[in-house]
Amino acid sequence: MFDPRPIAYVIGLVVAVLGVTMFVPMLVDLYYGSPDWAVFLQSAMISIVFGGTLALATANTAGQGLSIQQIFLLTTLVWIALPLFGALPFMMSVVDARVVDAMFEAMSGMTTTGSTVFSGLDDLPAGILLWRSMLQWFGGIGIIVVAMVFMPELRVGGMQIFRSEAFDTMGKVLPRAVEIAGRIFWIYIGLTVANVLAYLAVGMTPFDAINHAFTTISTGGFSTHDASMGVYQGAPEYVASVFMILASLPFVRFIQLAAGTARPLFTDPQVRGYLTFIASITLVLALYRLIANGDHFEHGVREGLFNAVSIISGTGYASVDYQLWGAFPFVAFFFLGLVGGCAGSTACSVKIFRYQLLFASVKAQIRAIHSPHGVFVPRYGGRPVGEDILSSVMAFFVMFVVSLGVLSVALAMTGLDTVTALSGAATALANVGPGLGDTIGPSGNFAALNDTAKWLLTAAMLIGRLEVLSVYVLFTLRFWRD
Amino acid sequence: MFDPRPIAYVIGLVVAVLGVTMFVPMLVDLYYGSPDWAVFLQSAMISIVFGGTLALATANTAGQGLSIQQIFLLTTLVWIALPLFGALPFMMSVVDARVVDAMFEAMSGMTTTGSTVFSGLDDLPAGILLWRSMLQWFGGIGIIVVAMVFMPELRVGGMQIFRSEAFDTMGKVLPRAVEIAGRIFWIYIGLTVANVLAYLAVGMTPFDAINHAFTTISTGGFSTHDASMGVYQGAPEYVASVFMILASLPFVRFIQLAAGTARPLFTDPQVRGYLTFIASITLVLALYRLIANGDHFEHGVREGLFNAVSIISGTGYASVDYQLWGAFPFVAFFFLGLVGGCAGSTACSVKIFRYQLLFASVKAQIRAIHSPHGVFVPRYGGRPVGEDILSSVMAFFVMFVVSLGVLSVALAMTGLDTVTALSGAATALANVGPGLGDTIGPSGNFAALNDTAKWLLTAAMLIGRLEVLSVYVLFTLRFWRD
Repeated sequence: MFDPRPIAYVIGLVVAVLGVTMFVPMLVDLYYGSPDWAVFLQSAMISIVFGGTLALATANTAGQGLSIQQIFLLTTLVWIALPLFGALPFMMSVVDARVVDAMFEAMSGMTTTGSTVFSGLDDLPAGILLWRSMLQWFGGIGIIVVAMVFMPELRVGGMQIFRSEAFDTMGKVLPRAVEIAGRIFWIYIGLTVANVLAYLAVGMTPFDAINHAFTTISTGGFSTHDASMGVYQGAPEYVASVFMILASLPFVRFIQLAAGTARPLFTDPQVRGYLTFIASITLVLALYRLIANGDHFEHGVREGLFNAVSIISGTGYASVDYQLWGAFPFVAFFFLGLVGGCAGSTACSVKIFRYQLLFASVKAQIRAIHSPHGVFVPRYGGRPVGEDILSSVMAFFVMFVVSLGVLSVALAMTGLDTVTALSGAATALANVGPGLGDTIGPSGNFAALNDTAKWLLTAAMLIGRLEVLSVYVLFTLRFWRD
Repeated sequence: MFDPRPIAYVIGLVVAVLGVTMFVPMLVDLYYGSPDWAVFLQSAMISIVFGGTLALATANTAGQGLSIQQIFLLTTLVWIALPLFGALPFMMSVVDARVVDAMFEAMSGMTTTGSTVFSGLDDLPAGILLWRSMLQWFGGIGIIVVAMVFMPELRVGGMQIFRSEAFDTMGKVLPRAVEIAGRIFWIYIGLTVANVLAYLAVGMTPFDAINHAFTTISTGGFSTHDASMGVYQGAPEYVASVFMILASLPFVRFIQLAAGTARPLFTDPQVRGYLTFIASITLVLALYRLIANGDHFEHGVREGLFNAVSIISGTGYASVDYQLWGAFPFVAFFFLGLVGGCAGSTACSVKIFRYQLLFASVKAQIRAIHSPHGVFVPRYGGRPVGEDILSSVMAFFVMFVVSLGVLSVALAMTGLDTVTALSGAATALANVGPGLGDTIGPSGNFAALNDTAKWLLTAAMLIGRLEVLSVYVLFTLRFWRD
C-alpha cells in the first residue's frame, strides 16, 4: 500500500524552509527601499503556512523509513514544489510575470539551468535578483545531496558506481544521509564564501559578488546583468572559471581534502578527464581565434576558457557572444553543453564519467571484435566495471539522446526554428542556460518563445536535472503496482 | 604474420568485374550517340587491367581462408577501391569532375547514400546517369551480402543477433557465403525487375524506370532529374514508397518467402516495428499538413509517406521540398534520417533493431531501478538478449552519436553553417542523401561545399555504411599487432 504521507511531510518541511529564506530578499528590499519587500513577506507567509500545515498534518509519519518508490516520487515532487512556491515573488512583484514565465524562471533556478525569460535585469529591484540567485544556490546544494546520497542507492544512470565511495569515505556511521549532507553543506558554504571574497578582490560590487558567487558555485548561471559577465571582463573571468571548475568537481574529493587527504582529488579519473578536456578545448578555441580572427592570445585563452567552462560545467554565463567567433565555435558550443562536469557536483548534463565508461565499453568491444575468443572487461580508474553499471549508463545515454530528439521535434512543432529548437532542447535537458541563435543565444533570452515551448522546456529542465530516468520511472505502470 | 595478398586478390577481382560492367554504360552511350562511350571503354580497360593484374599476381593465395583481421581490412578496402575506379568515368566524361567531386559522387553511389555534387542531371548523357545508378545498385547488393554473411560473424554493432538466423535458414551447407549471396542475388534481381515493371506501369520512361529501380531497390536515391522524383508526382510516389519499404526489410525474410514460408516476415520484430513507425510518421505528417497547411488529405498522405519513407529507409529521393512544410517537418526529417531500416537490407543508419534492443535494455533498467533485487533480462522477439549483444549495440550507438558530434564540429570548422554542418554530418553517416537548409537540402546539392568538407563527408559515408566500428577497428594498434 503506497503511503503518500511521508512524502507530503518532507515536501511540507522544505516548502516551509523555502518560505523562511524569503525573509532574506525581503530585508534586502527593505534596505534598498523597494516596495517589493511586501511581496516577499506575502510569499513567505503563503509558503510557511502551506508547508507548515502539510508537515504538521503528516508529522505522525515522520519516523517512517522511505521506500525506493517513495524516494523517487519525493525527489521529483520536491523539484516541482520548490519552483512552484519559489515562483510566487516573480508573479507578485514589479516583474509581474505570468504563471508560465514565473515557473520557467523558478525551475531554471532550482535546476541550476540559468535560462531566463526576464530582461532589463540591471534595473530590477535587488530582492528579485537575489531571489533568483538564491534559488540556484539552493538547487545546487540540493542536487549534490541527491546525487551523493540517493542516486547511488537508486541505481540511476550508473551513479551506483559511486555507491561505496561516499559511504566508505564517511565511515559506516548512521544516519549517513544527514552526516554526508552536513559535510557537503560546509564545503558548499566554504566555496561560496571564498568565491565572494575572490570576486570582491577583482573589483565586483558586493551585491554582484554575492549574487554571482551563488550562481557560480551552483553552476547555475543567472546574472544580475543582461550582459551577464560581459560587464566584468578581465580578471573576473579567470576567477569565475576557477570556481566554476571547482563547483563541477566531485564534492567527495573536497570532503577528503578537508580531512587532509589530497591524493584522491588528483587520481580521480573524472577529475583528470574533465581537466584535460577543458584544457584541450580552451587551447583549440584560443588557437582558432588566433588564426581565424587574428585575436590576441591571452584574450583568446581568457574568453575561450571562461565561455567554454561556463558551457561545459553547465553554468551558462557568457562574457561575449561567442556565436560571432564563427561557424566552428557555434557548432562546438552546441556539443560542449552535452559534455557536463563530474558526478557528485552541481554540474549537469551527461557528465564526464559516463563518457569515460561508455568509451571504456567501446574499447572492450573493439577488442572483442578482433579477438572473438577473448573476454574483455571495461575498466574505470583501473577497476573492472560491472555489466549492471554499464547497462545503467547506457540506459541514461539512450534516453538522454532520444529525449533530445523528441523534445527538438516537439519544440519545432510549436513553431521554433531549427537552431532554436535543437539548441533549446539541449540547453534545457543539459541544464546549461543559453541556447544558440538570435533568440535564445548567449545575447538573447527565452522571453520571446511561445507558452507551449516554455512549458516543454520547464519540464525538460526538471527531467534533465534529475538524471532523466528517475523521472521517467514514475510514468511506468509497474512503478505504481508494487 | 599479416598477409595482404589474399586481400589484394579479392580487390583485384572486384575491380576487374566493375571494369567489365562499364561496358553497359558504354553501349548505352553508343546507342544514344554520346561521345562519352569512349570514356567508359577507357575506364573499363584501366579497371580490368589494374584489377586483373592484381588478381593474377596474387592468385596463388586464392585458396587461403581469410582471418578476421583480413576480412575487416578487405571490407573497408573494397569500399575504397570500387569508388576509386567507379569515379574514373566522372573525371573523364563531359561532366569533367575534379577528383574530390568524382570521389564524393562515386562514394555516395557505392554506399547507397545518394548525395550528389552534380547538377543539370536532366541534360547529362545517358551513360553517366546509368553509371551513377549502377554504382548504387552494386553498393546495395554488396552491403546485404556483407551484412548477412560477414557482419554477424564479425560481431559488429550487435549484428551477431542475426548470426544463427541466416545460417539456420540456409541449412548447414558449405560454402555458406556463396550459397547465401546467390539467393540474395536472385531476390535482388527479382525485386529490381518488379520495380522496373511497376514504374513503367505508372508512366515512367523506360530509361527512368530502370535507373530509378536501381536506386530504389538499393535505397540509394540518385535520380536522373535535378528535381528527383518531383517530375513523377502521383502514382509513381506510391510505387516508389512500396519498393523502398521492401528494399529496407530483412532480405532473409524474402528468401524464406520464396521458399514458401511467409510467417517469419510478419512475426519479425524488425518488420513490425519498422512498418508501425512508418505508418505513424506518415499519419502525423499528413495530419500536420491537413491542419497547419490546409492540405488535401490524400496529397498529404502521399507526400508524407513518400518523403518520410525516402528518408527513414535512407534512400534520399525528394518529390517536393518538405522544408517548406514548416518548422516541425524540418526538424522531424533531421531525426527521421537517424532511424534507418531493417538489418540485412540495403538500408543504412542506426536501424530499427538497435533501437528496439536499446529500448528493451532501458525497460529492463527501469524495472531494475524500482525493484533493486530483481533480475531483468531484456528481450527481443520474446527471446532473452545476451549482454555481449547489448554491449555491441551500445558501442555502435555511442560511436555513431559521437562521430556525428565530432564530424559536425569538423564541418563547421571548414566554414559550413550550423544547419548544413549538422544535417550534412547526419545524412553522410546515415547514408541518407539530402541534408537540410538552402545548400544541401532536398532542392539543393553538395556542389557548393568546400573540398575539405567534401572529403570529410566522403569518409563519413564509408564509415557509416560499414557500421562505424568495422572501420574504426582498423585504427587501433592492437588490430595490427596480432
